[in-house]
Amino acid sequence: MVSIPLPVIAVNFKTYPQATGAKAVLLAKACEKASEEFGVSAVVAPQVSDLYRVSQEVNIPVFSQHMDPGDPGRFTGHVLGETLLESGCSGTLLNHSENRMQLADIEASVRKAEKLDLYTIVCTNNPQVSVAAASIGPSAVAVEPPELIGTGISVSQAQPEVISGTVEKIRAVNPDVVILCGAGISNGDDVLAASKLGSQGVLLASAVAKSDKPEEVLADLMRPLA
Amino acid sequence: MVSIPLPVIAVNFKTYPQATGAKAVLLAKACEKASEEFGVSAVVAPQVSDLYRVSQEVNIPVFSQHMDPGDPGRFTGHVLGETLLESGCSGTLLNHSENRMQLADIEASVRKAEKLDLYTIVCTNNPQVSVAAASIGPSAVAVEPPELIGTGISVSQAQPEVISGTVEKIRAVNPDVVILCGAGISNGDDVLAASKLGSQGVLLASAVAKSDKPEEVLADLMRPLA
Amino acid sequence: MVSIPLPVIAVNFKTYPQATGAKAVLLAKACEKASEEFGVSAVVAPQVSDLYRVSQEVNIPVFSQHMDPGDPGRFTGHVLGETLLESGCSGTLLNHSENRMQLADIEASVRKAEKLDLYTIVCTNNPQVSVAAASIGPSAVAVEPPELIGTGISVSQAQPEVISGTVEKIRAVNPDVVILCGAGISNGDDVLAASKLGSQGVLLASAVAKSDKPEEVLADLMRPLA
Amino acid sequence: MVSIPLPVIAVNFKTYPQATGAKAVLLAKACEKASEEFGVSAVVAPQVSDLYRVSQEVNIPVFSQHMDPGDPGRFTGHVLGETLLESGCSGTLLNHSENRMQLADIEASVRKAEKLDLYTIVCTNNPQVSVAAASIGPSAVAVEPPELIGTGISVSQAQPEVISGTVEKIRAVNPDVVILCGAGISNGDDVLAASKLGSQGVLLASAVAKSDKPEEVLADLMRPLA
Repeated sequence: MVSIPLPVIAVNFKTYPQATGAKAVLLAKACEKASEEFGVSAVVAPQVSDLYRVSQEVNIPVFSQHMDPGDPGRFTGHVLGETLLESGCSGTLLNHSENRMQLADIEASVRKAEKLDLYTIVCTNNPQVSVAAASIGPSAVAVEPPELIGTGISVSQAQPEVISGTVEKIRAVNPDVVILCGAGISNGDDVLAASKLGSQGVLLASAVAKSDKPEEVLADLMRPLA
Repeated sequence: MVSIPLPVIAVNFKTYPQATGAKAVLLAKACEKASEEFGVSAVVAPQVSDLYRVSQEVNIPVFSQHMDPGDPGRFTGHVLGETLLESGCSGTLLNHSENRMQLADIEASVRKAEKLDLYTIVCTNNPQVSVAAASIGPSAVAVEPPELIGTGISVSQAQPEVISGTVEKIRAVNPDVVILCGAGISNGDDVLAASKLGSQGVLLASAVAKSDKPEEVLADLMRPLA
Repeated sequence: MVSIPLPVIAVNFKTYPQATGAKAVLLAKACEKASEEFGVSAVVAPQVSDLYRVSQEVNIPVFSQHMDPGDPGRFTGHVLGETLLESGCSGTLLNHSENRMQLADIEASVRKAEKLDLYTIVCTNNPQVSVAAASIGPSAVAVEPPELIGTGISVSQAQPEVISGTVEKIRAVNPDVVILCGAGISNGDDVLAASKLGSQGVLLASAVAKSDKPEEVLADLMRPLA
Repeated sequence: MVSIPLPVIAVNFKTYPQATGAKAVLLAKACEKASEEFGVSAVVAPQVSDLYRVSQEVNIPVFSQHMDPGDPGRFTGHVLGETLLESGCSGTLLNHSENRMQLADIEASVRKAEKLDLYTIVCTNNPQVSVAAASIGPSAVAVEPPELIGTGISVSQAQPEVISGTVEKIRAVNPDVVILCGAGISNGDDVLAASKLGSQGVLLASAVAKSDKPEEVLADLMRPLA
């Protein structure tokens, strides 16, 4: 499996026009450059249709935004692990708040990803769901209160107990799973606050993907971790 | 919350014609009578539309087959906890293999049920999903390999490692949650085997609900536990 | 199939606390009394768990808020047509905006309902979807712009073109299907406006179900149609 | 919108390993070559992650296997029309039996595709659902009895009434929409039978995508239409 030194900044490109197609490649390159400059891991998660062209152009981990369980053959329109590998992916988000999954499908997808050496980040909405997700055995859990996503009000400053509670509950049963947080993270102070609460990285989207100057935002985000 | 001495035989009426409407009442009474005769707890889970008439007629716990998260007001067609209480329910199945739920909705439903003092049985498909479900904190987990449901080939005899693995994994992190099993359970030998593997009861459906002589089947199922 | 003279006032009880359990029975009786007094058809759609107790107490049509396709046997937690019949229902809403269905499932449910002589009202969100729903052959279509549901801003006054457009498009291909409208309908003026636009009745919820004096609201709604 | 002379052979690559990644490009080229040789339109529908690399390499229409409604911005993991355009797509399948959609989402996706000049093929399961789909106004409808998909038992020979019934019902209300059929189509005889029943093309998958010699299969399929 891909090695991702911690802490890590994971950038979800969602479906932002500024992060689609040729612009997805440019944004991924900006993430790669910032990662090299600050020595902080960066992961990019462009749309499925952009995975191939992005993975051809950068040397940082490229993740899918979603993966379905299921084996190759049928499943028209589904996103399977084997195909992600063919597209140059090294991992995937699962269960994002904009793409919630059934419990059994999360587990099946994590098992399939393990077999394929794909890194998995399971998104969750609170500490209790986080510990359930962690008990499935993914590579990482990213707790994100849905009501803060896209607001610019950061979880680390507005709801620090969500991060500390998640860290406490998960570590009581699982010493290894990587713990990330997200929702409203937009600057270095948010990242620093998250880090102090025990988060090993952040998952963010609009602050980078919608920015006119993503290089500056990335520098601000990575500097506290460098 | 309703007290359910262990072990327990939980009977899912599904949508069997033999367990619908007036026949649901008769079947629930048969379960009640067997429970009294053998001193073994019985829980019945009729269809949502039958909850009221069944709960008016028996003194054993009546469960819903499903519950949605969400608070009263909107949610046309949903099954809310507050309404279950009004119908005389004391608990609910969640995440049955024929009605899988998103992880976040399972957790939200378990939290809502706690507030309302409703007993929750979260159905799962394997040991790893069982430990995830247990970590959410329901009253009980019922592991049921989907491929055996309705077959008459019992999990306790055909896949004993599913039960023992579930018990082992759950007990490593949660000493309290009740552990049930199901799928293909149809006679006393299946119940006894499940019990020896650490299961504290069984969840079954067709063996009782489709039987011409449910009293005899129930007697056979309960005798080893009496 | 149940005969419902037009125009009709259909009241969706949703999950309002004021329209649950024993209060659902009281509200249904208020609808029945108003229907008799004004000679205007009333249909009530309480929650699934209240269908039996409501249908035992009133002589107006009692509808389910939802129905799943599928035949009796499996389908834990689903709401099947055969069971609705057993509960005293004479029809069902389908595809409400709070409970959207797949196209193939709408058609399968309408076909199943036909076999069982259940009346079907398929909810839709705009004229184009309405004509698609009508072409499936349900008893009725109820167009409801989702953004107005529960607002008290009535579709008949705020978006009259939705009703007139639906009537025009449907009548071009189907002379028989009953056409209803809903969303924000709260008083007699809204009902009258809807009627003038070609609607043969209204589907409403909060204005009646949340009212302290549903009798007065019902009188106001029915008077223009009497 | 892309012009697709009729009849057309549309090949769904599903998630077949033989039609993934670099092999998807090879298969698309085989389809392009056969199309040129026989003068019969070919459309290919590779997985979303392969859309870009395939569309860079062939001059026949490249379709997505699915499209979600929704506008760019959020919708992590969704497949939006704007992104399909960026990937070189000229159309999409919608509502495939392995990826059923809600009625309202089908309509919203068709409307969005219209704005973007994307060609839409809505898959359906029987004549009545086909006429509902046609009334939404897509470019094409493809009727496919789900029980025959992947069997090699062709709809045109085993259930000819599904095709003739679909053609009859749709043409009564819509003279323009393209009518395709699928499920079990595997050779030229199946194509010919479909054509005689009024189908303007076929949608197929395994017969081409799983073949060791797709060129030969394509030649056999196209020859009767040449």
